[in-house]
Amino acid sequence: MWSKTVGPVVQNAIRTGSIRTYIKGEPNEPVVKTDIPGPKTKQLQNELNSIQLSGAVQLFADYNKSLGNYLVDVDSNVILDTFTQISSIPIGYNHPELLKVFTDQDNLKALVNRPALGVFPGDYWPGKLRNVLLSVSPNLPNVTTMMCGSCSNENAYKALFLTYRRKQRGENVDFTELETQSCMVNQPPGAPDLSLMSFHGAFHGRTFAALATTHSKPIHKLDVPSFDWPVASFPKYKYPLEENVRENDAEDKRCLAIVEDLIETYKKKGKPVAGIVIEPIQSEGGDNEASPFFFQQLQKIAQKNGAGYLIDEVQTGCGATGKFWAHEHFNLETTPDIVTFSKKMLTGGFFHTVDMRPSQPYRIFNTWMGDPGKIALLEAVLKVIKQDKLLDNVNKVGDKLKKGLLGLEKEFPQLLSATRGRGTFLATNVATPKLRDDIIAQMKKKGVLMGGCGDNALRLRPSLIFQERHADIFLDRFRSVLKEN
Amino acid sequence: MWSKTVGPVVQNAIRTGSIRTYIKGEPNEPVVKTDIPGPKTKQLQNELNSIQLSGAVQLFADYNKSLGNYLVDVDSNVILDTFTQISSIPIGYNHPELLKVFTDQDNLKALVNRPALGVFPGDYWPGKLRNVLLSVSPNLPNVTTMMCGSCSNENAYKALFLTYRRKQRGENVDFTELETQSCMVNQPPGAPDLSLMSFHGAFHGRTFAALATTHSKPIHKLDVPSFDWPVASFPKYKYPLEENVRENDAEDKRCLAIVEDLIETYKKKGKPVAGIVIEPIQSEGGDNEASPFFFQQLQKIAQKNGAGYLIDEVQTGCGATGKFWAHEHFNLETTPDIVTFSKKMLTGGFFHTVDMRPSQPYRIFNTWMGDPGKIALLEAVLKVIKQDKLLDNVNKVGDKLKKGLLGLEKEFPQLLSATRGRGTFLATNVATPKLRDDIIAQMKKKGVLMGGCGDNALRLRPSLIFQERHADIFLDRFRSVLKEN
Repeated sequence: MWSKTVGPVVQNAIRTGSIRTYIKGEPNEPVVKTDIPGPKTKQLQNELNSIQLSGAVQLFADYNKSLGNYLVDVDSNVILDTFTQISSIPIGYNHPELLKVFTDQDNLKALVNRPALGVFPGDYWPGKLRNVLLSVSPNLPNVTTMMCGSCSNENAYKALFLTYRRKQRGENVDFTELETQSCMVNQPPGAPDLSLMSFHGAFHGRTFAALATTHSKPIHKLDVPSFDWPVASFPKYKYPLEENVRENDAEDKRCLAIVEDLIETYKKKGKPVAGIVIEPIQSEGGDNEASPFFFQQLQKIAQKNGAGYLIDEVQTGCGATGKFWAHEHFNLETTPDIVTFSKKMLTGGFFHTVDMRPSQPYRIFNTWMGDPGKIALLEAVLKVIKQDKLLDNVNKVGDKLKKGLLGLEKEFPQLLSATRGRGTFLATNVATPKLRDDIIAQMKKKGVLMGGCGDNALRLRPSLIFQERHADIFLDRFRSVLKEN
Repeated sequence: MWSKTVGPVVQNAIRTGSIRTYIKGEPNEPVVKTDIPGPKTKQLQNELNSIQLSGAVQLFADYNKSLGNYLVDVDSNVILDTFTQISSIPIGYNHPELLKVFTDQDNLKALVNRPALGVFPGDYWPGKLRNVLLSVSPNLPNVTTMMCGSCSNENAYKALFLTYRRKQRGENVDFTELETQSCMVNQPPGAPDLSLMSFHGAFHGRTFAALATTHSKPIHKLDVPSFDWPVASFPKYKYPLEENVRENDAEDKRCLAIVEDLIETYKKKGKPVAGIVIEPIQSEGGDNEASPFFFQQLQKIAQKNGAGYLIDEVQTGCGATGKFWAHEHFNLETTPDIVTFSKKMLTGGFFHTVDMRPSQPYRIFNTWMGDPGKIALLEAVLKVIKQDKLLDNVNKVGDKLKKGLLGLEKEFPQLLSATRGRGTFLATNVATPKLRDDIIAQMKKKGVLMGGCGDNALRLRPSLIFQERHADIFLDRFRSVLKEN
C-alpha cells in the first residue's frame, strides 16, 4: 500500500503506529492519478468560464471526499493541502465536530434566520460574542463582527478616522453645520483630508480603502482610483537572522525613521496620519517578518502622534504562528487599538479598545453586521483547538517543519534561502520567481499543494491539524523535488 | 381569541377561512405583552453594550419562536414584521424549506468546507451558479459572487474602472512600466483619476468607495475621507404622479441635464466619469422613485460617454417590487452593464456583461468570493418563489396595500402624502420627521414593526409571503394609529 514516493521514515512511522491519524479515515498519503488540473477539472473550468472569468482556478475539489489535511479533486487525486484555501481552513476538511454543528436546532435557526445583528439580534448574540469571540480576544474588550477580511479592515479604518476626528474636535463637541453639509458631497471638512499609513509589500484587501493600504502586486491595484496616503518601508532582513543582528537592527531603525518622516510630511501636506495599519507578518507580500522591537517602536510612534495602531491578523490569526495571535509574539507595551481578523476565524471582524467605539449608533454599521452561522462554526473550531491542544501541535509540527526546511536550505543553498516564520506559518525563498512557480507545479505532481507569495517565496499554510506525519510527507516530497532542480 | 385591535374585516376573513395561513402555525395576529424594548431586551442590550455599541438595537428576537411574518421577541411579544431585517428576509422566518436545506449532506459539506471559490471551487459550483443565480439573471450572462451589498458594489465599481481603462488604453494593450510602478504608491496613471457618478439621496453601502457614492444621511459619512466624485440630482416628484405629469417630466429633464453637465465638468477637471451608479428606487434615501424615461435616458447618456451603467438592486431585487428585478419595470433598451444584489438574495454579488469581465485573473478577487452555504439557501428560496408563485402574491398584496395606503392618505391628508412604490415595496411620507418616528413607535406598541427612510418616509418591506390577511392587520392598525395623531 505504501507509495514509493513516501520516504522510509514515514513508512516506518506509519507501520509502527508511532504516528496516529488525528482524523479517522484520513488518507495515509497523497495519490496522484492525473495531471492537475485533470480532465474533469478542465471540463468544469470551461463550464465556469462561460459564467465568470475562471483563470485563477487550480482545480475543482470534491468536498464530500476531502478529509482532514487531504483535498480530493474531481479527478480523484488525493492531495496533501499545505495551502488550505489561502490559509482559511482552521481544522481541516469535514472535521466531525464541524459536521455536527447544525444538527443543533439553535445553531440551525441562527443560520437560517440571519438577523440584522445591529438592530434585531437574537437572544443568543451577547453570549456568543462573549463566550466565543471574546474568549480569544487579544486583551481587547470590544468586538465588532463583519463578513470578510476586506470589510473588516474597511470598517476598522472608519473607526480609526472617527476616533481621530473625535479627539481633534474635542469629546462631546457636536458636528458643525459645515461638516454636516460638506460630507454629503465628499468634501472636507466633513469628509476630512486624513490618511492611513501602510507599508510597501502590505496586503489588507481589495476593496477601495483596503486596496489603498495594499502594496503587494500591481495586478491587484492597476486601474483602481486610490487615496494619496503614505507608504512606509517594511524591514527587509538578511538571513539567517542570528548572523545579521547588527544589519537587521539598522534596517529596523531605517524603516522607523521613514515612518516618522512620512508622518511629518503628510502632516505638512494637510493629510495627517490617523492610523498605522500593519500585518504582524506580511503574508501575500512575501512572508516578510519584522522584529518585536520594530512593532514596539511603531506603537510608540503611533501613540506619540495620536494615530491609532491597527494590526491586521486576517491571515496570521487563529493559531498558525503558535500563539493564537501573531502579535502576541511581540510583547507590546499595551494592546494594539484594533486587531482585525477573518479567514480561519470563519467570521470577519475586529477587536478594539473602548476608545475606538463610535460615539453614535449607525456609524459603523451595515445590514448584517456579521453572520451567526459563522460564529456557530467558530465556536466548534475553538472548542477543538482547546480540547485537542492544537496550538501545542502547531508548535511541535512547526518546529519539525522549520528544522526540515533549514536542513534543505543547507542541502540546496543554490535553490533555497531565508527560511523564516513562526509555528507552521513558515516560508522560504526560492532562487527565482520562475523556479518558485516550477517547484509549486512539481509539488502538485507529487500530490502536495503549496502556496507562493511575494516574488519568489514559498509559504506553508497548513491547517492546525497538520501533524508530524504530514510534515514528514511534505519534507520528503519537497526534497525530492529540489533534487530534480 | 381575537384581539380587539384586529379589525372586523380580518376577524371575519379568518373566521370564514377566506384567508389561509401560508405558513402552518403562524400566529393569527400580533400580541403585545410588554413595552418594546421590554425588560429582557433591555437586560440583553446592557450586556451587549459592554462588548460593542448597542445603540441601534430595537429588540432582541427569539429566532426559534419567530415564524412566517411574525417576529417573536425575548419578551414574548409577537410582532408582525413589515421591515424584515432591513428588507433582507425573503420568505419569512423559519420557512420549512429553509430548515431542510442542510439536512442534505452535499449542502452541509458545501457550507462547512467553505472553499476559496476563485481557486479551488467545489465540483458543484458551475452548476449552482447556472441553475440558481443565472436562473434569475436580468439577461446578463455573467455573475460574480460576493459576501454583502457593500463589497458587491465595491467590486462592481472596480469592474467599471477596469473596463473603462481597458477601452481607453485599447484592447490587448499592455500596462506601461509607469502605470505598474505608480499604482503601487496609489498615484496616477496606474491609480487613475477617474470618478463614478452617483445621486443625492443614494445609498450604496458604507465601505469607502460605496460610501463615496452614498448620500443619504450625514451620520453615515461624517469623518470618513472620500473621493471627489460627481453627485447628480435624483428626480423629486410631485404626487399624485398622474396629476403632475408635466412638472415631473420637467424634473426628469432638469436632472438629466445636470448629469450631462457634471460629466463635462468632471472631464474638464481631469476626473472622467467611468460609470453611473443608481438604485431603481432610492431606498435608504427615502423611497424616491424615478420614471422609466429617466432611467432610459440615463442609460443613453452613459453609453454616449463611454461610462458603465450600474443598477444597484441590493434592496429592490428578489421580487418585492412585483418583478424579480425592479429595473425590469423600466423597459431599458439594453441590459444595464452591471446589476448588484444582496439582502433577500442571501448572497452578495453582481450580474454583468462580458464586457465587464476583467481580462486577467486575480483582479476582481478575494479569498472566499462568496459562500456556497448562502447559494444553497438561495436555491431553496428561489424554488419556493417559483412553486408558490410568490411574485403573484406580491402583486396582489401590493395592490391591496397601496390602495389601502392611498385611502388612508385621503382620510388623513394632514398626516400622509406621496404614497408610492411598486409591489409591496411601498412608502408614504409623514408630515414631519418627528411624527414619522412617533408613528413607528406607536405601531410597535400595536405589534407591527415598520421601517423609516429618508427624512420623513415610512417604508414597507415585508417578505414575499406577506399575505392579504397581513395587509389587513397592518392597514387596520395603521389606521388606528393615524386616528390617534
